[in-house]
Amino acid sequence: MGNYIIGIDLGGTNLKAGIVDTDGKILHRLSTKTNSHADSQIISNQILLLIAEIIQGARIKESDMIGVGLGSPGLVDKRGETVLFSPNLPRWRNIPIKRIVAERFSKPCVLENDANAAAWGEKWAGAGKEVRSLVMLTLGTGIGGGIVIDNKLWRGASNVAAEIGHMVIQMDGPQCNCGNRGCVEVYASATGMVRRFKEVLKSGKFSSLKISDEITARMISDAAFQGDRASLDIIEETGRYLGIALINIMHILNPEMIVLAGGMIGSGELLMNPIRQVTQRGAFEASYKDTKIVFSQLGNDAGIIGAAGCLLTELEISV
Amino acid sequence: MGNYIIGIDLGGTNLKAGIVDTDGKILHRLSTKTNSHADSQIISNQILLLIAEIIQGARIKESDMIGVGLGSPGLVDKRGETVLFSPNLPRWRNIPIKRIVAERFSKPCVLENDANAAAWGEKWAGAGKEVRSLVMLTLGTGIGGGIVIDNKLWRGASNVAAEIGHMVIQMDGPQCNCGNRGCVEVYASATGMVRRFKEVLKSGKFSSLKISDEITARMISDAAFQGDRASLDIIEETGRYLGIALINIMHILNPEMIVLAGGMIGSGELLMNPIRQVTQRGAFEASYKDTKIVFSQLGNDAGIIGAAGCLLTELEISV
Repeated sequence: MGNYIIGIDLGGTNLKAGIVDTDGKILHRLSTKTNSHADSQIISNQILLLIAEIIQGARIKESDMIGVGLGSPGLVDKRGETVLFSPNLPRWRNIPIKRIVAERFSKPCVLENDANAAAWGEKWAGAGKEVRSLVMLTLGTGIGGGIVIDNKLWRGASNVAAEIGHMVIQMDGPQCNCGNRGCVEVYASATGMVRRFKEVLKSGKFSSLKISDEITARMISDAAFQGDRASLDIIEETGRYLGIALINIMHILNPEMIVLAGGMIGSGELLMNPIRQVTQRGAFEASYKDTKIVFSQLGNDAGIIGAAGCLLTELEISV
Repeated sequence: MGNYIIGIDLGGTNLKAGIVDTDGKILHRLSTKTNSHADSQIISNQILLLIAEIIQGARIKESDMIGVGLGSPGLVDKRGETVLFSPNLPRWRNIPIKRIVAERFSKPCVLENDANAAAWGEKWAGAGKEVRSLVMLTLGTGIGGGIVIDNKLWRGASNVAAEIGHMVIQMDGPQCNCGNRGCVEVYASATGMVRRFKEVLKSGKFSSLKISDEITARMISDAAFQGDRASLDIIEETGRYLGIALINIMHILNPEMIVLAGGMIGSGELLMNPIRQVTQRGAFEASYKDTKIVFSQLGNDAGIIGAAGCLLTELEISV
């Protein structure tokens, strides 16, 4: 038995690897640009190469390596062997990546949905270390989710649970990419916030940002910190939408903790204040008192650390 | 160790008891009208009396009795000792009913939320015997819920999980008793359906039912089976609202089974067809294929059987 796990976080933009110890600390990192429009074979080779390189770079022996945890966007099949479908990596699917990695390095590998992996990272080594149940929302281009219940990831009957971004909060609301209307992602993802912001500008509201700019959620956040009223308002509104989603999570799961992660948490208390106001008013008192709503502690490392943690859990190594 | 459990189902209208064997069969029953506006002491005495009477009537020895499982409406405190608040039994709260029953009969007692108990009944001895995860919705005056994950009831951090009726599906929708807007209960409970039906009649739509009647969900269902168009339409619309709620449950929890229970399932396929249509279109394919949507098998007995099953589980007697 070795001492280190390789955690891999495959994203639409970057492919990141870390050497992670059994306490959930990253000792060494390496990353590369994902060849996101390439076919599965090429991406799979990128992963194998990155693993080989990080082992070499960190000067650890392959015998010191426990195995590989791989977090991937998209729906992972029930047996955790392949990715069925991934919106941001259109050709990344139906390749037995778990087996390919395991055979190449003669070490165990687990394949996990990236948001699940990140949630497990926060539970193992981040904000959720002390709790037995948490729900994590990753607020980025879309909204991902992960659910930990009774100290275990809850993946559902078909390994597609925790798709919290597609919870409907306004059944006659705007169309979502998923085909339904009024998903929380339509309102409160970075994409959704930018869309609503542009509508506000079109309606004539003043902002230091101009509609001609290629507006991003980051730009709105920066403008808000500079005091731009339109930006402040749209972030507050985003927080209120998220608050509704959190009320639903609290009503359904009543978890000990809700962890917010992803690029949008850069807005900090501008986003958190309306979330707290809405949940305090709308959740049951018992639930509001007992559910801590916090930001991620691991930030962008949650995926790498969590993927590594998933491998340890799979191997039933006490974490 | 005895052979029988007393299961109690405390409702706003009826207080029901059953002698339940360790296979989840009811061998003997007894019920009485709940003294619903009386204070806690009186209701608590009703419960003690009913237990004493059913033991006597069934001619079993107290030594053959394993203990008592008590299902109650309302929020049960974290330690499962008392009811904090129950909308339909306004003065039924803050009495240590678990201890009172246990001391009076010198047997263990568990106190469980009634919808949780019913969900556990379906899991133990009903529709969900073969599955490890299920979500149950009880469609009555309100909408209650129970969640089984990994063969265990999931009660949440504050024992208030599974309040599925208060999931928001239309954040600017009609006001709910809970204070929020657009909860699924506002649309798809019996009360919600009757309210919508009256609005339709007021708008001038023809129905064999008249707005002057004291319309109930049962009357709408009966009229629909007689071919009344307005009644058929309103039940179909109710099914579509429930379909949205089920999509959310499938997205979040992806359970193996969703069990529908309560008076409204008397509408049978009239209600189930739109639910299936909406979930087939709106849930992920993997989730739709793997989540069975079924009606309760135990019907009104789920509460009694489930409360008994909760006691066995608490005592860790294999069920």
